[in-house]
Amino acid sequence: MPKTIFVINPNSSQAVTDAFDEALNVLRIPGGPAIKSLTLAEGPPGIQSQMDVENVTLPLVNLVKSLDSKHGDDAGAYVIACFSDPGLHAVREATSKPVLGISECGILTALTRGHRVGVIAILRTSIPRHGRMFGAMGLTERVVAEVPLGMNVTDLVDTDRTRAGLLRAGQQLRDSHLIDVVVLGCAGMAAHRAWLEQQLGVPVVEPTQAATSMAIGRTLLSW
Amino acid sequence: MPKTIFVINPNSSQAVTDAFDEALNVLRIPGGPAIKSLTLAEGPPGIQSQMDVENVTLPLVNLVKSLDSKHGDDAGAYVIACFSDPGLHAVREATSKPVLGISECGILTALTRGHRVGVIAILRTSIPRHGRMFGAMGLTERVVAEVPLGMNVTDLVDTDRTRAGLLRAGQQLRDSHLIDVVVLGCAGMAAHRAWLEQQLGVPVVEPTQAATSMAIGRTLLSW
Amino acid sequence: MPKTIFVINPNSSQAVTDAFDEALNVLRIPGGPAIKSLTLAEGPPGIQSQMDVENVTLPLVNLVKSLDSKHGDDAGAYVIACFSDPGLHAVREATSKPVLGISECGILTALTRGHRVGVIAILRTSIPRHGRMFGAMGLTERVVAEVPLGMNVTDLVDTDRTRAGLLRAGQQLRDSHLIDVVVLGCAGMAAHRAWLEQQLGVPVVEPTQAATSMAIGRTLLSW
Amino acid sequence: MPKTIFVINPNSSQAVTDAFDEALNVLRIPGGPAIKSLTLAEGPPGIQSQMDVENVTLPLVNLVKSLDSKHGDDAGAYVIACFSDPGLHAVREATSKPVLGISECGILTALTRGHRVGVIAILRTSIPRHGRMFGAMGLTERVVAEVPLGMNVTDLVDTDRTRAGLLRAGQQLRDSHLIDVVVLGCAGMAAHRAWLEQQLGVPVVEPTQAATSMAIGRTLLSW
Amino acid sequence: MPKTIFVINPNSSQAVTDAFDEALNVLRIPGGPAIKSLTLAEGPPGIQSQMDVENVTLPLVNLVKSLDSKHGDDAGAYVIACFSDPGLHAVREATSKPVLGISECGILTALTRGHRVGVIAILRTSIPRHGRMFGAMGLTERVVAEVPLGMNVTDLVDTDRTRAGLLRAGQQLRDSHLIDVVVLGCAGMAAHRAWLEQQLGVPVVEPTQAATSMAIGRTLLSW
Amino acid sequence: MPKTIFVINPNSSQAVTDAFDEALNVLRIPGGPAIKSLTLAEGPPGIQSQMDVENVTLPLVNLVKSLDSKHGDDAGAYVIACFSDPGLHAVREATSKPVLGISECGILTALTRGHRVGVIAILRTSIPRHGRMFGAMGLTERVVAEVPLGMNVTDLVDTDRTRAGLLRAGQQLRDSHLIDVVVLGCAGMAAHRAWLEQQLGVPVVEPTQAATSMAIGRTLLSW
Repeated sequence: MPKTIFVINPNSSQAVTDAFDEALNVLRIPGGPAIKSLTLAEGPPGIQSQMDVENVTLPLVNLVKSLDSKHGDDAGAYVIACFSDPGLHAVREATSKPVLGISECGILTALTRGHRVGVIAILRTSIPRHGRMFGAMGLTERVVAEVPLGMNVTDLVDTDRTRAGLLRAGQQLRDSHLIDVVVLGCAGMAAHRAWLEQQLGVPVVEPTQAATSMAIGRTLLSW
Repeated sequence: MPKTIFVINPNSSQAVTDAFDEALNVLRIPGGPAIKSLTLAEGPPGIQSQMDVENVTLPLVNLVKSLDSKHGDDAGAYVIACFSDPGLHAVREATSKPVLGISECGILTALTRGHRVGVIAILRTSIPRHGRMFGAMGLTERVVAEVPLGMNVTDLVDTDRTRAGLLRAGQQLRDSHLIDVVVLGCAGMAAHRAWLEQQLGVPVVEPTQAATSMAIGRTLLSW
Repeated sequence: MPKTIFVINPNSSQAVTDAFDEALNVLRIPGGPAIKSLTLAEGPPGIQSQMDVENVTLPLVNLVKSLDSKHGDDAGAYVIACFSDPGLHAVREATSKPVLGISECGILTALTRGHRVGVIAILRTSIPRHGRMFGAMGLTERVVAEVPLGMNVTDLVDTDRTRAGLLRAGQQLRDSHLIDVVVLGCAGMAAHRAWLEQQLGVPVVEPTQAATSMAIGRTLLSW
Repeated sequence: MPKTIFVINPNSSQAVTDAFDEALNVLRIPGGPAIKSLTLAEGPPGIQSQMDVENVTLPLVNLVKSLDSKHGDDAGAYVIACFSDPGLHAVREATSKPVLGISECGILTALTRGHRVGVIAILRTSIPRHGRMFGAMGLTERVVAEVPLGMNVTDLVDTDRTRAGLLRAGQQLRDSHLIDVVVLGCAGMAAHRAWLEQQLGVPVVEPTQAATSMAIGRTLLSW
Repeated sequence: MPKTIFVINPNSSQAVTDAFDEALNVLRIPGGPAIKSLTLAEGPPGIQSQMDVENVTLPLVNLVKSLDSKHGDDAGAYVIACFSDPGLHAVREATSKPVLGISECGILTALTRGHRVGVIAILRTSIPRHGRMFGAMGLTERVVAEVPLGMNVTDLVDTDRTRAGLLRAGQQLRDSHLIDVVVLGCAGMAAHRAWLEQQLGVPVVEPTQAATSMAIGRTLLSW
Repeated sequence: MPKTIFVINPNSSQAVTDAFDEALNVLRIPGGPAIKSLTLAEGPPGIQSQMDVENVTLPLVNLVKSLDSKHGDDAGAYVIACFSDPGLHAVREATSKPVLGISECGILTALTRGHRVGVIAILRTSIPRHGRMFGAMGLTERVVAEVPLGMNVTDLVDTDRTRAGLLRAGQQLRDSHLIDVVVLGCAGMAAHRAWLEQQLGVPVVEPTQAATSMAIGRTLLSW
């Protein structure tokens, strides 16, 4: 029986989970791993500060431990679907299964789609937090610019405003920073990837798709 | 009908192709992309110099163009199964399908399995060539050491000698360079991954598996 | 009235707190900030894993909030006295007072005492965790090597074994890695700084002293 | 008896010395190290070229040697109060006391107050000189931008023009380069730190205060 | 008898060869190495894609081998006169004589003429290709910006349009990116170096001159 | 009339000047720039500390100014022949002629002869000084190791001891650090380059030859 990949939204916004879950449909194949999207009940509406990150870390660890305990070998991999990769390294200590963060995998995937990588953050205050993370990954040489939308996670339900912001940010990355590939810096933008890619004419990476797509292979490999 | 991932061995050693092809079985799933391993007829027995890299580049481009032309949308992705990633960027220009190199994907995958990455090269003369490549990737901060086996690609059929060399090199990476994860720096070591991981007690990444595993998701996403 | 610097040991080993508290005596001056060492009751005996880091993060935030609330402007600064700098960025969000981590300040201070910086970790498993942290700081170019003692935090009470280990690690840093300055990579080694410096003949930085020393000035500046 | 920290202005502009000396008052505490500001008589009105740097190097070494000889153990530390850190490493060879440069300490302090660091230089021609220095420090990853005022050191006495320039430069760093913390790249801007911080709404580091503040702790530690 | 330096234009545009050949006159001295400019017959009109790079690689190797065989010790050095340094490392394997690329030598020379290096590319699509190359060289810290002309190699015969573009690009590098030295990122701009330097007031490096100039010394040294 | 390149030994050891002067003979060609080696009378016997560097800086500037004034346009370029590149940036401000440092040019030349660069220093205490310099150059990614001889400049007259030390250091760089090219980290080793290259079987760069060789072309170009 195929194993299950658990894609966990650390914030409590079901709309975010629903949007990326729909974007994951393309990755669901008959004999492949099941992909199950979960919303962390204890999460805030959006992960927008370091404190938000810390608040969901132990709940994420506990959720993974509980899923691991309940599903045993049927649990194939875990994806943490927030662009701050909250608790990534702690969750890795808590399970022997592959654990992937969408920030990490979004950037790693972008590295194979273009040389100069640009990121669209939701808020300006996300940028230093992401900067610490990219630094920890040792990838600052390739992530050449990040620009903010200036919108809260919960504002992303406003499609028109979100798309206007994404377009403006993407154009700035493309035209001022000369990036070759854009990474969407929040799990809540999944519905707009294809649209933005078409608008900008440069590849756009949706990080939850990127991470779940990597999780399929890792589940099959069991490493 | 599922698409096909073409995994191309740029050297002409069928034994290398056979060995990684067997290692790819775990990635073949009903309903998932077919995975077809090919050997580049024009290739040398092993890619061991920059000249070897250049000699296979145009044949690789032509092979991919021909596969693309023959299979159309049924061609899902291409994997270049040589740790020098020969022709990677030229092939990317030649097709709109995802193209992944095993060096690139081996390292990117390793980044999610440990902090300090070590590589086992076949020959000492491979190390500067890999160094240019890791530099181009912007990943030198995380690839902390590379040690050579001192064996030609064709020597790798000698299992005993290969395993003795892998063990010695892996121990040096683990004990002297304090690496957390090992990447096998040649497509011809696929049969030894699990064995080496068990011997060393640290994760070992087989790069053709890593790249093909990423290619599955990318095929499904069509990006 | 002088303000107070709170130096918080996130682990529950009072012996560690006592040792660094004594090392802080030299920083206690009549008209200067008071320096008060605290032990986090909720902490584990030692912070030795990412999970340990996460487990103390919210308690640290809560402790600082509570101190801030109780002492108001009399609280001058906070020092997090664990070389993993647990919760550093979350605590910074929780208070307007200066918050300093001993890893960060230990390294920053070392940068002014020598060019090539070496770190002595307690455990090998600390090294990748520190590596992520130094990467986040953007300081990997200067931190050229880290070697482990192979001792738990609680083992550090064994002075003879600790000193033997420190000497061996320090000599390896000095003689094999050609470092110019050593940073003690744990708050529990404070009693051995002067001894090790004398033995090695190169500067040795004790990070709790380094951070508290920086906290004095920052308390006076109120930034 | 408390030791003395000597803060040496390598240029001969007494107005610069007076301004930072006043800014150091907050660091003068009963029982703490005395802080004595000096002006290097041999210095040019401002250090604005590499030649200016070289011209003050030997006089700085000689001044420190003479102070060391005169004050013996009562000399606690030396601060070189010019953002080019002239003679820093030579002075370190000339005395066993701590020697701190304001550029080095300004940047190191900034690293604890924000992730992306921006610097305001006086002149555009200072930027490559600073670039060499930040490169030597290994800190280029964090110092993301530097913008010039386009004013000579001696022009800084014109408060209105200086503040207008600082505001414009600070806004450019904040809004175009998305920096999180500003470092004043000259010892002659000390009177404007608090004002600029309030105007910009991001932390502003005055480097002579930063270095002297670090010198207090280092004097107490005697390292 | 003086040896000969062969400067090979990998594209087939004789106008490009003629222009740089004229610029090399200043390097032709009575007792020094002869400098012979060649046009690769098999080359495309301009090297503007990775595929163009790969297409000229083997012809370049073969040309050098044939020159080496024909001229023996009279062949002093080879310069590959295209800013993508096509085949550089393969040609190095094919001959024991010094082989220099104009991109590499253009940047290396620029490092001695200013701190912050800026490059003018012909096309925006050249920038990621150059980025991989600068990364392989390990020089990304110093090459701070690259801006495109938006002109094909063959368009460069239009002097007015080329100069207008160079001026605009150079001003952007100088005024927005604060570079100290400009490198012309194509062998086809040789006629405009002195003009652009005068217009911009910052040093401008013509890379074929830079590489050939280095080749003179290397020919004399025979290494 | 050909211009003159002045190669200035900043230390007063005529034996050092004589040795590199002889090594420069190969660069003296009819019709090419004259190459004149000078010894700085005011220099110490060897540049072995930062203080030594500073002590020769103003004399170097003055010597270049005086040569410039005396020779006018007949002075083609200046080479500072000490591996600490003393006064390099100040001398560049003092003349409009090209000024090259042997450390800078030794490393830049090495970058074209191998990927991983290793340096042989005279003294261990030179290594941090060189480290600051390589950092300022932005070249730390390629300079992977430096090992000391443990000999003073003046000891280098002892050929047997010097060669024994060079061989041991070179073997360590080649075998432990896997370097591809060695740079001699002192102007006083010029007589041993060819011998060491033959012994080691890897390219060895003599930095005074490297810099003077670059100065020939730069003199011809007048930039």
